[in-house]
Amino acid sequence: MAAAQLTTDTLAERHRPTLDQALDTIRTRAYWSPHPEHPKAYGEHGSLGAAEGLAAYQGLLDGRFELDQPGTDGWTGGEISPYGPVLGVEYPHADIDVLLPAMRAGTAAWREAGAETRALVCLEILARISARTHEFAHAVMHTSGQAFMMAFQAGGPHAQDRGLEAVAYAYAEQTRTPAGEAAWSKPQGKRDPLELTKSFTPVARGIALMIGCNTFPTWNGYPGLFASLATGNPVLVKPHPRAVLPLALTVRVAREVLAEAGFDPNLVALAVERPGEGIAKTLAVRPEIKIIDYTGSTAFGDWLEENARQAQVYTEKAGVNTVVVDSTDNYKGMLSNLAFSLSLYSGQMCTTPQNLLIPRDGIATDAGPKSYDEVVTDLAAAVGGLLGDDARANALLGALVNPDVKARLEAAAGLGEVALESREVANPDFPGAVVRTPVIVKLDGSKPEAQAAYFSECFGPVSFAVRVDSTDDAVELLRRTVREKGAMTVGAYTTSPDVERAVEEVCLEESAQLSLNLTGGVYVNQTAAFSDFHGSGGNPAANAALCDGAFVANRFRVVEVRRQA
Amino acid sequence: MAAAQLTTDTLAERHRPTLDQALDTIRTRAYWSPHPEHPKAYGEHGSLGAAEGLAAYQGLLDGRFELDQPGTDGWTGGEISPYGPVLGVEYPHADIDVLLPAMRAGTAAWREAGAETRALVCLEILARISARTHEFAHAVMHTSGQAFMMAFQAGGPHAQDRGLEAVAYAYAEQTRTPAGEAAWSKPQGKRDPLELTKSFTPVARGIALMIGCNTFPTWNGYPGLFASLATGNPVLVKPHPRAVLPLALTVRVAREVLAEAGFDPNLVALAVERPGEGIAKTLAVRPEIKIIDYTGSTAFGDWLEENARQAQVYTEKAGVNTVVVDSTDNYKGMLSNLAFSLSLYSGQMCTTPQNLLIPRDGIATDAGPKSYDEVVTDLAAAVGGLLGDDARANALLGALVNPDVKARLEAAAGLGEVALESREVANPDFPGAVVRTPVIVKLDGSKPEAQAAYFSECFGPVSFAVRVDSTDDAVELLRRTVREKGAMTVGAYTTSPDVERAVEEVCLEESAQLSLNLTGGVYVNQTAAFSDFHGSGGNPAANAALCDGAFVANRFRVVEVRRQA
Repeated sequence: MAAAQLTTDTLAERHRPTLDQALDTIRTRAYWSPHPEHPKAYGEHGSLGAAEGLAAYQGLLDGRFELDQPGTDGWTGGEISPYGPVLGVEYPHADIDVLLPAMRAGTAAWREAGAETRALVCLEILARISARTHEFAHAVMHTSGQAFMMAFQAGGPHAQDRGLEAVAYAYAEQTRTPAGEAAWSKPQGKRDPLELTKSFTPVARGIALMIGCNTFPTWNGYPGLFASLATGNPVLVKPHPRAVLPLALTVRVAREVLAEAGFDPNLVALAVERPGEGIAKTLAVRPEIKIIDYTGSTAFGDWLEENARQAQVYTEKAGVNTVVVDSTDNYKGMLSNLAFSLSLYSGQMCTTPQNLLIPRDGIATDAGPKSYDEVVTDLAAAVGGLLGDDARANALLGALVNPDVKARLEAAAGLGEVALESREVANPDFPGAVVRTPVIVKLDGSKPEAQAAYFSECFGPVSFAVRVDSTDDAVELLRRTVREKGAMTVGAYTTSPDVERAVEEVCLEESAQLSLNLTGGVYVNQTAAFSDFHGSGGNPAANAALCDGAFVANRFRVVEVRRQA
Repeated sequence: MAAAQLTTDTLAERHRPTLDQALDTIRTRAYWSPHPEHPKAYGEHGSLGAAEGLAAYQGLLDGRFELDQPGTDGWTGGEISPYGPVLGVEYPHADIDVLLPAMRAGTAAWREAGAETRALVCLEILARISARTHEFAHAVMHTSGQAFMMAFQAGGPHAQDRGLEAVAYAYAEQTRTPAGEAAWSKPQGKRDPLELTKSFTPVARGIALMIGCNTFPTWNGYPGLFASLATGNPVLVKPHPRAVLPLALTVRVAREVLAEAGFDPNLVALAVERPGEGIAKTLAVRPEIKIIDYTGSTAFGDWLEENARQAQVYTEKAGVNTVVVDSTDNYKGMLSNLAFSLSLYSGQMCTTPQNLLIPRDGIATDAGPKSYDEVVTDLAAAVGGLLGDDARANALLGALVNPDVKARLEAAAGLGEVALESREVANPDFPGAVVRTPVIVKLDGSKPEAQAAYFSECFGPVSFAVRVDSTDDAVELLRRTVREKGAMTVGAYTTSPDVERAVEEVCLEESAQLSLNLTGGVYVNQTAAFSDFHGSGGNPAANAALCDGAFVANRFRVVEVRRQA
């Protein structure tokens, strides 16, 4: 291997303060991010500005995406933007019997580098990704269908934050035992003490497989990728076939940094599949694969948990997110907050509320009592108002990610009384984009046919205003929903301490993350790295949370060597 | 529930310094223990002395062991000491359909108590167990067959250390997020910042099942029991039918302390099975059971991992422990150290070396070159010398724990040339005890029939002196053994830095705990809590290590509640 251009000293100088701040923040849970959210913050100090980022993205289109990976046996790719354009990018296709052994070759040196150097290399990768946030934003936008601003923030700084958070947890976990030699001396009364020297080395489990998703390729992908890499494991990135580009860029940056730091670039590699090849299933049960991170459907997540027995499997699957609407002292704030939550990215977030549980007899508000119908009508009006202007609607909604979402949206209108019709929004920049406002459907919670609808996930811009008998009934339905269907988020609006306690109790017992009385600029579907947990790992929606000790602790093992002193 | 006799203040005053010292020591890995190893250290400050402990033990025999658990539907028990006597203790048999729901009733209060109070209650339980170490020693001795001194130390202070270690890890893990409310404020440029208050609560997964083993009921049982309890989970203790008493005592103490501290005593309960009932299998797949700790056979450990899919499963199964003998600068020290390791508790430790790999052409030592035959003969002489005196032999060997071990020992002599014959040792105190010295069998490593013998676990006082072609051959065999069969321990003797590096590399790559050149009073089969990891969790012998972050981090989840500030 060539001498490292990036020395440990350089890496430490650049990134150790950031690592320390991240380590501090995961303990305080205060607000912090080293990655600017504003597009205008980029363009200096080596980062790409808006025009440069767009140009860089455009330069990737209609060509081969070279990675110089071992075992490349062909080229594949067929991404079409949810906004219409064909990306035309071809990626290397890997012969995994060649690639997997090559990925292991650099493991020993990566292990010997130690936890700190691994963390700092990961931070350099993230810093270089950060500098190219504008380029990544377009790649995320044109694979996920997110609107530009969301693709920029969620696909850029917020994803980088989640990656950094995982690195911080991984570093903290690996450094719980001393890095150097520890002396051990056990007194033996009048005899000489027993003495040993001991060393503790975090060791990799094996190759980690990160299976990316369509909607948030970087945000959902980075925690697993960086947690595995920082704990010493080579990482094979298997993107969703419709959202390859953001992760291919990520892999390219990672390989560059690894090589410059004197490590084997094959510690991070890309596996893109040919149409219909289904390589996730093949890879997931390979004996070399010891860790799997997956975000996607419950069916495949369950399959992985059931079948990839040789690996630690971390899954984020589907859930049914509920908001209990009991009462509020800020009716307007509640409506506008909910309207935004339902609209953002056309409800295509795993955290978007689906079931709004509203008592049949209405709710108490600061604007007087509101009947069930009034609440639903007012919410529909709030959504309508928020999305009334096409430019604003486009900026919030983005495009539908795939035809299945469109089909579900269209079918939803037949499930009950439509309180708010979905409307088609034209996108002047991208005439091919499928842009739709959310539908709100009224359902009677006690009717069996309604239950069939609201008691399963309907991913996309579909919400159910479920008429329940009472708040108690809502709380019980919440409990049953979380226990049986899982939930990434729970929301509740109430001015009653008793109701608040009851909802909180359900969330504590069923392990669900709860947002109470959000009426401002924070939404139930958004979580902030270093502070908020994404998922709990304790209900059927996900078996892990982003990010906690459990997310990293079992990605490595500690080997102790004891020597006679 | 009655008012707490044990207040939080009292608990903190008694135990917070011990908890702090434990938290410090798991980071430094220095020697420390609050639990004295010497029998004479007991008998004051409320602890039972030798005579009182024996009397207390004797008072338990031939009677019913009352626990006042819900759902008791009968009495069962049939323990016979490996030393001969029938214990005659009957334990409550539980109707699990009554007991399991009762165990959940106290979960909310236990959760609300918080991580610190839970830890302090666990420390009070351990302190009361410590005060009764003499009593426990007899209970461990007469269920496991350990000699008294070992039962005293391994079953007493060392087991209590491992329990305390687990509590410390559990406490540290749960307090990584703030216990109270955390303020979060995100700047918004010229606009007002976004503000939330956040609280983070560790929540239980559900009921934990601890399945005890015959040989080390307390030492192997306490880590899981205390890790689960300290993280908020009720714990159902299912002892091995031949080793109930030490865990029944443990459950009794735990229930007493819980009640005195104002908690539901049913947070810890005992499940003893009727002969042939096999309740472990039934319990393991109950939906209420969310955590399982198990020590025992590979077959049942694998069954649990395969079938108890609703639970987090922590297993310690069987492995094949190897010692690579390449060279030494302390031949005498090596022989006496190995002789002790092979003899202790008749080799009935999961950490006892089984395969001693010795090069065909012999080894270099400070006493000149030694041929393979000489090494084996000298080792046999060292074991013979160590165990030549019957009193000393009894004190080291203890009794064979069950007839299977005796049968394996007897069959081993037929596997190859016997270098050291097993001899029967009479125990004057317990004429019914089956006491045997270890057998050492010579095997040619390259012969297929020999491979069949040394490449599987032969639990008990059986060691194989395996003649290998070279040290390189030994290192390769070590690698294959750890990878395919697993290992709780690896030992090596060498003066060569190259060999040392090669062995270390294998252990790092295959995740095995290595002891190098032990020639003094520390043995490969012993590990010290707070400093040494027991198992690695990264090879087939065990899927978890005692004790690290991964052992505790997934026993609870963190639920966050965000509120509009």
